[in-house]
Amino acid sequence: MDAYVVGAGQSAFGSFPDESYRSLFETAYTQAAESAGLVPSTLSDRVDEAVVGTLGVGGRQIGLSGPAVTEHVGLDGVPCTRVENACGAGGFAVRSAVQAVKSGMADLVLAGGVEVMTDTSADTTKWWLGVSGETAWERLSGTTFAGVYAQMASAYFDAYDADPEAMARVAVKNHANGARNPKAHLGFECTLADARDAPTVADPLNLYHCCPTSDGAAVVLVASETAAAEFDDAVRVAGVGAASDRVGLFERDTYTSIPASRTAAEAAYEAADIGPDQIDLAEVHDCFAIAELLAYEDLGFCAPGAAPDLIERGVTDRDGDRPVNTSGGLKSKGHPIGATGVGQVVEAFDQLTGRAGDRQVADVGRALTHNVGGSGGAAVVHVLEADR
Amino acid sequence: MDAYVVGAGQSAFGSFPDESYRSLFETAYTQAAESAGLVPSTLSDRVDEAVVGTLGVGGRQIGLSGPAVTEHVGLDGVPCTRVENACGAGGFAVRSAVQAVKSGMADLVLAGGVEVMTDTSADTTKWWLGVSGETAWERLSGTTFAGVYAQMASAYFDAYDADPEAMARVAVKNHANGARNPKAHLGFECTLADARDAPTVADPLNLYHCCPTSDGAAVVLVASETAAAEFDDAVRVAGVGAASDRVGLFERDTYTSIPASRTAAEAAYEAADIGPDQIDLAEVHDCFAIAELLAYEDLGFCAPGAAPDLIERGVTDRDGDRPVNTSGGLKSKGHPIGATGVGQVVEAFDQLTGRAGDRQVADVGRALTHNVGGSGGAAVVHVLEADR
Repeated sequence: MDAYVVGAGQSAFGSFPDESYRSLFETAYTQAAESAGLVPSTLSDRVDEAVVGTLGVGGRQIGLSGPAVTEHVGLDGVPCTRVENACGAGGFAVRSAVQAVKSGMADLVLAGGVEVMTDTSADTTKWWLGVSGETAWERLSGTTFAGVYAQMASAYFDAYDADPEAMARVAVKNHANGARNPKAHLGFECTLADARDAPTVADPLNLYHCCPTSDGAAVVLVASETAAAEFDDAVRVAGVGAASDRVGLFERDTYTSIPASRTAAEAAYEAADIGPDQIDLAEVHDCFAIAELLAYEDLGFCAPGAAPDLIERGVTDRDGDRPVNTSGGLKSKGHPIGATGVGQVVEAFDQLTGRAGDRQVADVGRALTHNVGGSGGAAVVHVLEADR
Repeated sequence: MDAYVVGAGQSAFGSFPDESYRSLFETAYTQAAESAGLVPSTLSDRVDEAVVGTLGVGGRQIGLSGPAVTEHVGLDGVPCTRVENACGAGGFAVRSAVQAVKSGMADLVLAGGVEVMTDTSADTTKWWLGVSGETAWERLSGTTFAGVYAQMASAYFDAYDADPEAMARVAVKNHANGARNPKAHLGFECTLADARDAPTVADPLNLYHCCPTSDGAAVVLVASETAAAEFDDAVRVAGVGAASDRVGLFERDTYTSIPASRTAAEAAYEAADIGPDQIDLAEVHDCFAIAELLAYEDLGFCAPGAAPDLIERGVTDRDGDRPVNTSGGLKSKGHPIGATGVGQVVEAFDQLTGRAGDRQVADVGRALTHNVGGSGGAAVVHVLEADR
């Protein structure tokens, strides 16, 4: 049984001291309903089930954090499952919604994600993210997520004797895209010099190689084939793949690839019966610039070591052969943990249905989303196809 | 497509300063594998997917807490989703596993739950549980979970002019059952006088009306019909129901019922095409003694207000017409949050397959499990049937 995305919406991502996780979720919910041609107040009568991805809304509600947001939009009564896989929470929430539909136990499922991260001290956020990585040794040694990805970057540029300027190119591209996205957290352009010469965060990563922490929410509606027939637009979930791995980077055999991404992508391609060449557009998990380069390789967009060349040739630019992160990605659009993976599907839906405004890419028939938890302890990939 | 439970195991529940959440999970995993006739080290080759219910293993790993436990038993690589609905996390993990199987995306799914709660101060545990309830007002007012359930008990005994001694009877029954369960946290018997005259915790709830906080883990294996055929024992998941509700008790219309339990049970009965009279045995969510009394009514075992009579007549005793909490329940077996709902399915599996040792009830053809999140913000009910 196929599953379809029939509506998608999100709040702006950014720093919103006057909003709460509930108000942000309501904004995403309202826009998802309207995108599906529904009056928001009637959506609660239609939804059979909800899945919410969040890291405990940034510590504000660490238990029952799913029902705590869905009740606010009138979904009290509807079964709600909170799903968490660190930064991959949102993508896994969408996957669970797809399973719920395919199981025959639900016809219309809300998959949402939400996080509020900017109203606490940097130390609190660092702690909160720290206990989402490997807690026994990485955290004990004081290694932050930037530190973990810095190790991957060091290993990568060393292994391939490549120029770290490739990471600056990721930033330039994603900021150029985000500047066209009114919902982006850091919606401004930057130059190659800006992105190359910024202050160091964790060598070799500098400020422009790191995504921000953000507030935000995103919601998509996943429908069975029967239910989807009632909606004007429906995007088919052609394939889903997921994998886990050792939570600690130091436990893995490679630092120059995220094996969970590779396994998840292979499974998604197999389910969709396609190869990576048949992907027109992708939203990938660029929490740090090195992560986007690894994603190119792990998703099969190029051979190992060839990512710097791919971005330098402009292949992944918005007007390139295979645009990546047209939304601005985590780097420019922002990274409100639980909302991120759902927001990727929002961008894919918008691109596949011609709703992407100034960012619209022509002739997008098939899009991929790629969401990673931690430094690769979990990964999930969706392949989405325009159906009509 | 039907789903089947083909293996089930759990650690002892209790206070285990020499264990970790990983070692406890490994114990449950090993026993689940062995119960299915598998060599534990080969199980990782068979499992397509894992779902782990936990409240962040009691705060030790609040992100990626699913993969952090499954990697320890060799399941790195396997897609793992962490599910949380406060004290209902485990039951929702089993439900997600059932959906994964019914979706056709997996043939054999591990559903596990784990928590470690006893190695921190009472204040830390209280905080941790506090942010799993309604955080805006209930926590602000200093109301603990015992306080919330005390309000329900007060309302109940007032509404029906009933004798609170019914709560002491719940404790006596569940301790009598737990005394036969080598894995129970508080595996000793108590007298009616013990349970009636214990020190007050939150009036009208006394010490014997409250379950302990525990360490522990539980694992069940959920299989498709095809996969289930390979195993000696298979228990059919005849029906699943779930619901959410307002997280805060004060937001609900009734204090003398948990509406989410009622809705979840109705959905499970409808899916199984049975009525409550056809349930032979039940594991219900007795976090506080009042909760077991409400469960009798919400699950349809008796009319509203008739629960005190039901327990006084011994109907729910181990040798009664419809035994409830033969494991000892949360009260005596213990309540390691994420493990609880999975542990209920372990007891149902054991009873349905004749493995319940000194607690075995004769002729159990159909069992029900009932797991609640918070004070009723979420609830999930499974109906399980002996298949062979």
